[in-house]
Amino acid sequence: MTINKSYQNLVSKLEEISYLNGVMCTLGWDQEVVMPSGASEARAQQISALAGVIHERMTDTQLGECLFALQEEDDSAFNASQRCNINEAQRDFDLETKIPKQLVMDMAALGSRSHISWVKAREDNKFSDFAPVLKQFLELKKNWAQYAFPDLSPYDANIDNFERGTTMAEITPVFDYMKTELIPFIQSIKESTYHPDVSFLKGKFPVTKQESLGRRISQDIGFDFDRGRMDVSVHPFCGGSHPTDVRITTRYKEDNFIESLYALIHETGHGLYEQGRMLEGRDLPVSQSLTMGIHESQSLFWERMIAQSKFFCSHYFETISASFPDNLRGQSDELFYQAINTCQPGFIRVEADELTYPLHVILRYEIEKGLFDGSMVVNDLPEIWNEMMMKYLGVKPPTDTLGVLQDSHWSGGAFGYFPSYTLGAIYACQFYGTMISDLPDTENNIEKGNFAPIKSWLNEKIHSQGRLYTPQQLLQRVTGEALNPNYFIEYLKNKYRAVYRLN
Amino acid sequence: MTINKSYQNLVSKLEEISYLNGVMCTLGWDQEVVMPSGASEARAQQISALAGVIHERMTDTQLGECLFALQEEDDSAFNASQRCNINEAQRDFDLETKIPKQLVMDMAALGSRSHISWVKAREDNKFSDFAPVLKQFLELKKNWAQYAFPDLSPYDANIDNFERGTTMAEITPVFDYMKTELIPFIQSIKESTYHPDVSFLKGKFPVTKQESLGRRISQDIGFDFDRGRMDVSVHPFCGGSHPTDVRITTRYKEDNFIESLYALIHETGHGLYEQGRMLEGRDLPVSQSLTMGIHESQSLFWERMIAQSKFFCSHYFETISASFPDNLRGQSDELFYQAINTCQPGFIRVEADELTYPLHVILRYEIEKGLFDGSMVVNDLPEIWNEMMMKYLGVKPPTDTLGVLQDSHWSGGAFGYFPSYTLGAIYACQFYGTMISDLPDTENNIEKGNFAPIKSWLNEKIHSQGRLYTPQQLLQRVTGEALNPNYFIEYLKNKYRAVYRLN
Repeated sequence: MTINKSYQNLVSKLEEISYLNGVMCTLGWDQEVVMPSGASEARAQQISALAGVIHERMTDTQLGECLFALQEEDDSAFNASQRCNINEAQRDFDLETKIPKQLVMDMAALGSRSHISWVKAREDNKFSDFAPVLKQFLELKKNWAQYAFPDLSPYDANIDNFERGTTMAEITPVFDYMKTELIPFIQSIKESTYHPDVSFLKGKFPVTKQESLGRRISQDIGFDFDRGRMDVSVHPFCGGSHPTDVRITTRYKEDNFIESLYALIHETGHGLYEQGRMLEGRDLPVSQSLTMGIHESQSLFWERMIAQSKFFCSHYFETISASFPDNLRGQSDELFYQAINTCQPGFIRVEADELTYPLHVILRYEIEKGLFDGSMVVNDLPEIWNEMMMKYLGVKPPTDTLGVLQDSHWSGGAFGYFPSYTLGAIYACQFYGTMISDLPDTENNIEKGNFAPIKSWLNEKIHSQGRLYTPQQLLQRVTGEALNPNYFIEYLKNKYRAVYRLN
Repeated sequence: MTINKSYQNLVSKLEEISYLNGVMCTLGWDQEVVMPSGASEARAQQISALAGVIHERMTDTQLGECLFALQEEDDSAFNASQRCNINEAQRDFDLETKIPKQLVMDMAALGSRSHISWVKAREDNKFSDFAPVLKQFLELKKNWAQYAFPDLSPYDANIDNFERGTTMAEITPVFDYMKTELIPFIQSIKESTYHPDVSFLKGKFPVTKQESLGRRISQDIGFDFDRGRMDVSVHPFCGGSHPTDVRITTRYKEDNFIESLYALIHETGHGLYEQGRMLEGRDLPVSQSLTMGIHESQSLFWERMIAQSKFFCSHYFETISASFPDNLRGQSDELFYQAINTCQPGFIRVEADELTYPLHVILRYEIEKGLFDGSMVVNDLPEIWNEMMMKYLGVKPPTDTLGVLQDSHWSGGAFGYFPSYTLGAIYACQFYGTMISDLPDTENNIEKGNFAPIKSWLNEKIHSQGRLYTPQQLLQRVTGEALNPNYFIEYLKNKYRAVYRLN
């Protein structure tokens, strides 16, 4: 077979896998948004059958032979996109085939058991019931790491699974530095004598008004409803099956419109990444979103850098007031801006503000690191957790349900995932800094509701770059710098100093 | 391999195919109900990839070997359900493997081209543009028939595809008899001096009111919303992926609530069939719905026999009036009953009332028969169509778009499908007659809104019988009779004589 034919052969195989993955994503959306409750058992069987087919295709020996033939070739025979497709396919093929079948089956079996055990332990507030499966998952994931990425330490291998190329050597100093900066800063806010009024954000906000406001803002900032949808689900998410079929969700609480609106803007940020993928090779790895962290940088970019800004509040205050006139009477854009930018240390990560959020993540990162290097043991986690919460945020969860048992990640064996949230926040600030230099008119544009230049910039610099670079390379190319938490820290300090009238 | 192992092996293979078909059905529902318009190309590729996988599984040589081993065994080794699964699997396997690949590809290719050509010809009102592909499809389907059912005449083979075991020898005399009875009867209605007032069915009926009324009635008659949903689509249908995931749709017109309500009741009838399937072997052929005709008998049972009855109108008139008080003021259940049971010969099959509908079907059946036996040729169809419309219904379509080009069936090569509609109507009347004998309190029950006994009777007699019998056998078992159009004709005559005050 000629190189060209081998490559075309690879493309067909990858496209088929991509189409079937699209089908799987549609099933996932369906399950979260519209599936009748009674269908869950049938759906599990459908998903399992389709997963079996996809696994079969991904581990097909013909795919392996095709990749082997292509790897033998000189790199110069391919352009950058083609090389990327070959390398990505090789990485996926290795990940699917290098893990012993028994281990894959053990992880799958434990995943299901472990989730049930976590739900139960959380309900009963009894960590000791969850501890045994957590220990088993840890051992399986250490074992997995040796097969998946034998050159990396086990925790680095697990991180690589979500944020490739990023290791503890890079994360630890960044997170340590953030702790030294943020912990005392949060303390100074606690001690501040001025606290913005947030009382007008409580009240009754009709869901239909929230829905139309959210839809309008999502559309304004660039979400294309001809190639996407917006629905309701228990947990907000961005799903869909293709760049032409991107589906965001939010949830509505009648007494809190900020939560649903900003969740929607967050998911719109994810959605714009997916809708903005390169036009070429849309069903090939090269066009896919890069990592969890880069994805999160896009959602946080819109949620925080844009939508929590003074300029955004200034542009939308009138619209928001018109939606909820009784609630916002007598307020101003400045007071609204302050009210949505307050800091309140709490127990729950997903409810945390942007200032305390990183400490929730760092705590989890340090625990995972400790579990993998043996300096911590599972049985001690509740105590460790509560001590760290006290030290980092000055609060102590009254129960394990509100503490160590709050997140589902570990019950699914997703160790190494948490750092992505804060890496994303750091990336977002670095990207924003560069964009401000490239497009100095940005703040004016936000104030005028002209979001098109921002979206175009992100499309060009990030969305359309697909997987051509690692996150580190992409960051360097876009911003001219490596990972640098100072932008994020300065952004937080400048904003919250002003809001809380510090100095 | 022992018989038991071979059978278990077959069961696993059939279940996998069933799960993957469930996935395909979810994609189909998604496409009609929620998919963003921009996603159609990506969706086509996803469906094609999944169809490829399903075809691969259905034609797997291991499945063939497994079936061969089982067919060698004595029938007595299996119970009725097991025998049914083996026979159904053999039938499907044969249908998938006996047709030459080239013919399958030709039909698939023509199907897509032909549909586009039909849409265009319909827009342009130009049958001659559609005629060439219709001719080709006819040839392909004649060819297909020889491979699929070599023992049947080509048109019988095509009918068997939708209503197995039913042939022209059975249908023709039934349809001929119906013509002699119905054509003069419709004429006498036309000449009647009394015509019920239907003016109050026109007006403005808010969609939200229609939606909640429809949902209530669907639930009242037994649709289980924990194992199903109700949505909006361009054409009403019943889809979903499993008996625990049945999805019905309707469409709303603000100026006509009867259309959407009765479409919904029709689809609920289909949905009750699916939700009522036997509990054993739910993912195996034995539990599946039997044929198009039997399915239609269930939708028409609820739409016509139950929901167009006096007793139903009597029970719901107050509820309906409460939904649309301005429109129904001064009316009564009797006047409402009359208004929804009027007869008006028209051009369009899907808009036809129950009395003229069979003639639309018979016309199409006779044309298909003529095309297959060579007594008619494609080029003459517009003229033949209009002559028959004149003869059977006394109306002549002013354009081919409103005539021979109105239905999509032929553009998909679905010859032999049309008779199912009227067979379903006949079955429905025969089933109703038997039910009235079995449950003499039925009319009282309808009037009281007590639909549970009716649903239970259908569940037991029809829904839970799956594919254990042919339609002919099922009809005989349930009613003690073969296909007999007299019940249908008597039902129509008695009802419409009273409504139009004939005699």
